Amino acid sequence: MEPEKHRNIPSVNPDLSSYFWLQDYTLKDNRYLVSFKSKDYHYLIRVRRFKANDKFIIRIEDDFLKVHIESISKGQDLILKIDDKVVLNSYTSNKIIVLAMIDHYRLDLVIEKLTELGCLKLILLKTDYSQSLSIDLFNRKIRHWQALSRAACMQSGRSNLLDIECKMSFADLYDQYSNLVILDHHSSLLLSNALLDSSIAVIGPEGGFSDKERLWFSKSHITTVKMDGNILRSETAAIIMARST
Amino acid sequence: MEPEKHRNIPSVNPDLSSYFWLQDYTLKDNRYLVSFKSKDYHYLIRVRRFKANDKFIIRIEDDFLKVHIESISKGQDLILKIDDKVVLNSYTSNKIIVLAMIDHYRLDLVIEKLTELGCLKLILLKTDYSQSLSIDLFNRKIRHWQALSRAACMQSGRSNLLDIECKMSFADLYDQYSNLVILDHHSSLLLSNALLDSSIAVIGPEGGFSDKERLWFSKSHITTVKMDGNILRSETAAIIMARST
Repeated sequence: MEPEKHRNIPSVNPDLSSYFWLQDYTLKDNRYLVSFKSKDYHYLIRVRRFKANDKFIIRIEDDFLKVHIESISKGQDLILKIDDKVVLNSYTSNKIIVLAMIDHYRLDLVIEKLTELGCLKLILLKTDYSQSLSIDLFNRKIRHWQALSRAACMQSGRSNLLDIECKMSFADLYDQYSNLVILDHHSSLLLSNALLDSSIAVIGPEGGFSDKERLWFSKSHITTVKMDGNILRSETAAIIMARST
Repeated sequence: MEPEKHRNIPSVNPDLSSYFWLQDYTLKDNRYLVSFKSKDYHYLIRVRRFKANDKFIIRIEDDFLKVHIESISKGQDLILKIDDKVVLNSYTSNKIIVLAMIDHYRLDLVIEKLTELGCLKLILLKTDYSQSLSIDLFNRKIRHWQALSRAACMQSGRSNLLDIECKMSFADLYDQYSNLVILDHHSSLLLSNALLDSSIAVIGPEGGFSDKERLWFSKSHITTVKMDGNILRSETAAIIMARST
């Protein structure tokens, strides 16, 4: 997903800590040269519309640098002059969210939002009523999801990608994480902040949980709770849970 | 936006209070007849894949009714038999969110989420760096936005649409709502729950506010605050603000 154009966005905004993760460059005389054929060039010049002397923050591996455009001319490398090192005010919580696999379009949104909100990890879970999930699917999609998280990192000033893993069953999940709390509209217990702080929230698919799954929660003494308010879509619940502390 | 297909969704889920807002029907002998040519028929049969005897909740104007499919046959009206009246556990807060006009794709998402989360009203604001907004644009789009909110109402069990209005300037906004708090990453004051409870949050565009606007906040003694964490996209801030109490 390309970051979108903002017709009115001021191109110089060095106070904020959004940054551009430079991938394709040559370092020479304390300057970064970006080929006019590269994707990075396209983004900086065509999408963000930076001009000569504009200042912004770039990331090179794990360093953040304030640069300005020293030289730009048609068909030539873009020359970025380093002005300063920057320390980013990046935020990541220790929050882990488990989400039953949902459709890909809505999952993309969750990955973007969880990254912005500083969530540490997203665990995708296969459940009886979830969308299909397999190790093979996970392996095919992980690069796409990491690219989304990377774009959200640049936008939000976060330094580390959202960690994404998958679990093929509740039993697998429970083996590794025992402090689960299941969000289930059928529960009679209301979700409290205290409970949320000490647990990992599991968000079901749009179709909810199966009777078999509910029996397993009960047998395994896993707490189920409901949220107050209206019925939330899975991706809305994931976003809201990622923010709550 | 059509509600999407869920391959695995159980078609009978009368415990939850999602409902279908029936628009195109005939009432006869305590049964609702839905023409096989109507949009409503398409949604119930092709999208939700309801079958004979499946139960669900419909809304007729302001009434909620539990019905089941008494008869369905190709090329014939769908016959819904009324089983019961239902009282919905619908939730709407008194929360008002002001959002500088953002691009239409992301605004659609905000309208869906604010509806789910029980937000009372969304005010779209024209600011120096916002996307363009005019009364004419508002009038052309309001039906589309209401349709999105209606779909989110059906999904979430909310009974009233999100109220949407627009303001063409900060002055117009301030004339009607004096208890504003501006979310601005440049502020040194951190947003508190207490402040949020007593105020209407104003969320700026991706490009932030202009110097002229910041001067006006200061002259008008309007509080500006920043959120902790990473820089949020405008639509993420709107969703998070809609939930906080």
